[in-house]
Amino acid sequence: MRIAIAQQNYHIGNFDTNFAKIKAGLEQASQQGADIVLFAELAVCGYPPRDFLEFEDFISRSLTVIEKVKLETKRLGIAAVIGAPTLNPVVEGKDLFNSAYFIADGEILHIAHKCLLPTYDIFDEYRYFEPASDFKVVHYKGKKIALTVCEDIWNIGNENPLYVTCPMDEMMDQQADFMLNLSASPFSYSHAQDRIDVVRANVERYKLPVLYCNTVGAQTEVIFDGGSLVMDAAGRVVDEMPYFEEVVRTYELAPLLNPAPLTGKADLDESNELPKEKMALIYDALICGIRDYFGKLGFKQAILGLSGGLDSALTLTLAAHALGAENVRAVLMPSEFSSDHSINDSLELVKNLGCMHDIISIQHVYEQFRSTLAPQFEGTAFNVTEENLQARSRGVILMALSNKFGYILLNTSNKSEAAVGYGTLYGDMCGGLSVIGDVYKSECFELCRYINRNGEIIPNNIITKPPSAELRPDQKDSDSLPDYDILDEVLYQYIELRKGPQEIIDAGFDSALVERVLKLVNRNEYKRYQTPPMLRVSDKAFGMGRRMPIVAKYLG
Amino acid sequence: MRIAIAQQNYHIGNFDTNFAKIKAGLEQASQQGADIVLFAELAVCGYPPRDFLEFEDFISRSLTVIEKVKLETKRLGIAAVIGAPTLNPVVEGKDLFNSAYFIADGEILHIAHKCLLPTYDIFDEYRYFEPASDFKVVHYKGKKIALTVCEDIWNIGNENPLYVTCPMDEMMDQQADFMLNLSASPFSYSHAQDRIDVVRANVERYKLPVLYCNTVGAQTEVIFDGGSLVMDAAGRVVDEMPYFEEVVRTYELAPLLNPAPLTGKADLDESNELPKEKMALIYDALICGIRDYFGKLGFKQAILGLSGGLDSALTLTLAAHALGAENVRAVLMPSEFSSDHSINDSLELVKNLGCMHDIISIQHVYEQFRSTLAPQFEGTAFNVTEENLQARSRGVILMALSNKFGYILLNTSNKSEAAVGYGTLYGDMCGGLSVIGDVYKSECFELCRYINRNGEIIPNNIITKPPSAELRPDQKDSDSLPDYDILDEVLYQYIELRKGPQEIIDAGFDSALVERVLKLVNRNEYKRYQTPPMLRVSDKAFGMGRRMPIVAKYLG
Repeated sequence: MRIAIAQQNYHIGNFDTNFAKIKAGLEQASQQGADIVLFAELAVCGYPPRDFLEFEDFISRSLTVIEKVKLETKRLGIAAVIGAPTLNPVVEGKDLFNSAYFIADGEILHIAHKCLLPTYDIFDEYRYFEPASDFKVVHYKGKKIALTVCEDIWNIGNENPLYVTCPMDEMMDQQADFMLNLSASPFSYSHAQDRIDVVRANVERYKLPVLYCNTVGAQTEVIFDGGSLVMDAAGRVVDEMPYFEEVVRTYELAPLLNPAPLTGKADLDESNELPKEKMALIYDALICGIRDYFGKLGFKQAILGLSGGLDSALTLTLAAHALGAENVRAVLMPSEFSSDHSINDSLELVKNLGCMHDIISIQHVYEQFRSTLAPQFEGTAFNVTEENLQARSRGVILMALSNKFGYILLNTSNKSEAAVGYGTLYGDMCGGLSVIGDVYKSECFELCRYINRNGEIIPNNIITKPPSAELRPDQKDSDSLPDYDILDEVLYQYIELRKGPQEIIDAGFDSALVERVLKLVNRNEYKRYQTPPMLRVSDKAFGMGRRMPIVAKYLG
Repeated sequence: MRIAIAQQNYHIGNFDTNFAKIKAGLEQASQQGADIVLFAELAVCGYPPRDFLEFEDFISRSLTVIEKVKLETKRLGIAAVIGAPTLNPVVEGKDLFNSAYFIADGEILHIAHKCLLPTYDIFDEYRYFEPASDFKVVHYKGKKIALTVCEDIWNIGNENPLYVTCPMDEMMDQQADFMLNLSASPFSYSHAQDRIDVVRANVERYKLPVLYCNTVGAQTEVIFDGGSLVMDAAGRVVDEMPYFEEVVRTYELAPLLNPAPLTGKADLDESNELPKEKMALIYDALICGIRDYFGKLGFKQAILGLSGGLDSALTLTLAAHALGAENVRAVLMPSEFSSDHSINDSLELVKNLGCMHDIISIQHVYEQFRSTLAPQFEGTAFNVTEENLQARSRGVILMALSNKFGYILLNTSNKSEAAVGYGTLYGDMCGGLSVIGDVYKSECFELCRYINRNGEIIPNNIITKPPSAELRPDQKDSDSLPDYDILDEVLYQYIELRKGPQEIIDAGFDSALVERVLKLVNRNEYKRYQTPPMLRVSDKAFGMGRRMPIVAKYLG
């Protein structure tokens, strides 16, 4: 028996495109001699479909794809294991199941429902789905196959299991020969090794090989990296599919069932094709995120404001790499507070990348706003209002170019700024997509160095000069904020690790600083509420995965 | 035995304020001779605390309030039934329970956990809480008391029950004398009668009286209306507490347990003190929403752009009623496309209300933007870009005034506009709070008429003239959009009822129109992602309660 894995990039609700991909996957696997083709979780509609799942019409179109897949399996003489929503026939409970369909010879042989429904971070599965309460292996061509969906295999070996049941335990006495897992498991820079570990924990506990299919590609802010796995019954990584790429590969089952004995620890080591260095992973994920955001929305070209600082330089470079330099337009918008090096450094970067650029001074617009507001502002001093006026003048210019020529405006804020609210709402916080909103400032420095690893693309001066918003004379970020190294450590403790103030102070940080930073984070929830989606690369990004009240007093 | 209900308005994470309220409630009830005081769900920390629940520090501060309540019950010789989170001692499953604490004489006599965890619309409870699996009545002063938390009583009598268990059924053989329910059940204009019906369904099924305590007040966009209920064992509404007000009242238990026989249908009728007319409810809810948004954030004053159209006139009037006219500043920002009546109608409204106003022309700023962009825009025609430039010039001016003087900018978009994306991101879509973002345009007309019911406040000309954005000569909303009456009906079918295109067409709407409207709704998800929180008055508002992918193709 030969089993194929189709690691594919679907588009939510784009049933025609998704079916075309699935059909091509079946054909390709058939040419490779596969008997069964494994697809991802909710492949027919794309993941996460969110509240589209509440529309009967959406479910019915999803099931129409299943009907078409049935015909293909008959035509090609191949079996498909594919994810789709199923209507719950029982009146009590949620209306749907998140299911794995086993289809062969034009018929649905079996439907296995997902039992463990992730409802944390970006996941809302219990919002839609009833958990499985019935667990049966599929019998096909003399083999017993356990079907599991994503999270179903993640509840073992944890110190703090999220669920009280374990679906594979429930199937244990049915003695499956192997397991097929359909996943839509998102990327984070610390997640790749977890996946291998959890698959291995299953292999060891249930004494069977696992073929694990993950989806690939970005759905708005959520990025799926693929990395589908084949692990033999000895726990050996037989294959790890590439990250961020679509691929269909077929595997002989026999050696997975009866593997050669392990010869040592080296034999267990993962064999993934891409390096797992954090910055390389983040870079690849962001490129995928930008490309799919544009591609799936039907846009080609990006615009952004290039300030001369690190964040916009990094964002521009990522955009040029993702979309092609010819599709990216950088706009330099100096004011009276801009330094010469900002212009020069920006022009050097634009030249290095080969992208379009404009220089549009905001001076007249800024002065016109001040003179228009002079009657109201009489007797008041220059303060953050005038700083915001500059940032907002730039936002209006960028949006005008975006509207006139059909660019998507890229937001250039980093995670540290977004955390403490160091940015102007409707100013530099504008944009359709935040590229580095989940990358702390200290990680942005590292990412620039990673990009420059084979030669200077981002001018070194941009990386080494002290960060400044240049909205008043001689301004430095460090006038308003702690040094980024310290700030980012405190933010990480609070945001990623969810430590309280006393725990962070106990970890060795100054108490006044901790109190100030946490207050800034909580008080600026209202700004983050209105930011664009931020490409998610960490375990805890702002946006759907971190849901905070705006009106609250906790640590605020 | 006498039981008090404390219907109170908490502030999320403001433990000191919440405890002070709870203490005052206990004292007031004690003066009224109460034996037991019933508080709301998660009263100690406020509802919904969202991801603050993931912080151990937040839970520990919540439990500190419980410790203080214990001391108060001892001091006052009174029992408290109050909502707080509890740590789950079992390692498997979610870390918390959503609990009802029964506290008397300085001790916790019983903790009952919530079983039915709403995970739909704005609710995310399964994100945090493990459902109860153990159901016991409390024995107190010779009575057996069933404690339930909010949703626990909502799973009976439905055609489509959301849950497979029913906690009161589990307690049935313990023969409780009465039930106490702790709720945080949000307002929607169609929800008040539901509440009476569901409490009555419980009274009838379990043959006992119910005392039901709801919280009151707004938490960002979610509005709680109170309306706490006392229903005797015959199903008679003995009391319905006022909507949108804090109140502590005490009831004699004996007549609830042994009610007079019903004399007829009239005896069953609800006796709530406020009218249930839809526009009256929406008006009261929006006033509550504005007041609590400002009050809980520590702001007093609002600013907004007054265009001469219906939406900004309505928003201004609501703000003036909620905050006092002296705390509201209206800014008229005419351009070359503004009509005379826009200024005159606006000035008349400002005079009727007695609020501050400015007239600030955007003409020079708008022209300066056009001349700044002239090199880039050479050879292009006036289009939506120039319309957006006007809206964004106004947004920048409003935000500058907001920043300089400490106003919160109110957004004036209605639900119809928000649905189809008829608005300028970073222009008229700016603001800290959207007041009427959950009120369809046709409902806005009704709401204006309701406000004018005792005399003209909003000038009649504003209500009767054809809606226009006035961003180009002789523009009318009807140039771009279907008539609001038809548009709103289609939107209601799609948004509130979640009907698919064919179902809406089958209901009698033109197919081209339906397709166009649904496409507009789905394609403008990216704009709604960046809008301010919208005060929720319907069963399906944009925001946390409606979660849609931005990058998707379904009906787009």
